[in-house]
Amino acid sequence: MTPQRVTLITLGVADLDRARTFYTDLGWIPVEEQPGVVFYQLDGMALGLFGAEALAEDQGRPGAELGTGAMTLAQNFPDRESVDDAFEMALTAGAEPLKTPEEVFWGGYSGYFADPDGHVWELAHNPFWTLDDTGRLTIPTES
Amino acid sequence: MTPQRVTLITLGVADLDRARTFYTDLGWIPVEEQPGVVFYQLDGMALGLFGAEALAEDQGRPGAELGTGAMTLAQNFPDRESVDDAFEMALTAGAEPLKTPEEVFWGGYSGYFADPDGHVWELAHNPFWTLDDTGRLTIPTES
Repeated sequence: MTPQRVTLITLGVADLDRARTFYTDLGWIPVEEQPGVVFYQLDGMALGLFGAEALAEDQGRPGAELGTGAMTLAQNFPDRESVDDAFEMALTAGAEPLKTPEEVFWGGYSGYFADPDGHVWELAHNPFWTLDDTGRLTIPTES
Repeated sequence: MTPQRVTLITLGVADLDRARTFYTDLGWIPVEEQPGVVFYQLDGMALGLFGAEALAEDQGRPGAELGTGAMTLAQNFPDRESVDDAFEMALTAGAEPLKTPEEVFWGGYSGYFADPDGHVWELAHNPFWTLDDTGRLTIPTES
């Protein structure tokens, strides 16, 4: 059985310096940098920035295109104000606004932006999901 | 400052039943299901399956295409045999093999497959990164 887990997210980027600067502007601190690749330590997992062409090649899919729209990275926050603050910070860092945070149909509050390579991030407050004091998310189990 | 964290990954899928079956075949157990969406509890985070058109609409990018190649989801394993086993299981579940696990230039062992919607997963053993007994990944800090 495959572990129900993601341990590394790799974003294919067109310009590593540009991408690194964007995440630095968000306050992210790399834990490891090597020629052509930057890694960030997340909570029990990692996120990497890697040249898009090199990534496509590494995947066995040369020529795969940048950006997606069919996959989202999200950050959940304890309240709406924190969502707004993070959204503003992303725009200041040069993100493309896709949807300004607003009340959404499922009862939460959510906005979207695209990073310089078109990777889509959602910033959300979900009153039905639990965040602990350190920001770890737990989905309540259905009874 | 934006938290250095990902709390939810949402995969846009063409056919929710097909996608759900694929992850069920991998041994994944949904924690929450609602019409049009399935959620899995990961470690301190969640992964969701959601209709690709609905996701693109929700993102403010109607018409965004399925699949990517510019973003990877990865699972790290403690040894090569575990990588091979997980890769075989994925193929059995109907994954498209992109690269059979092999020794790679950075000193590890890695393979890639695409899920039914073209989302690319890497299965890897990285002898330089630490996995604890519960599978949590930590990147050693540079000294």
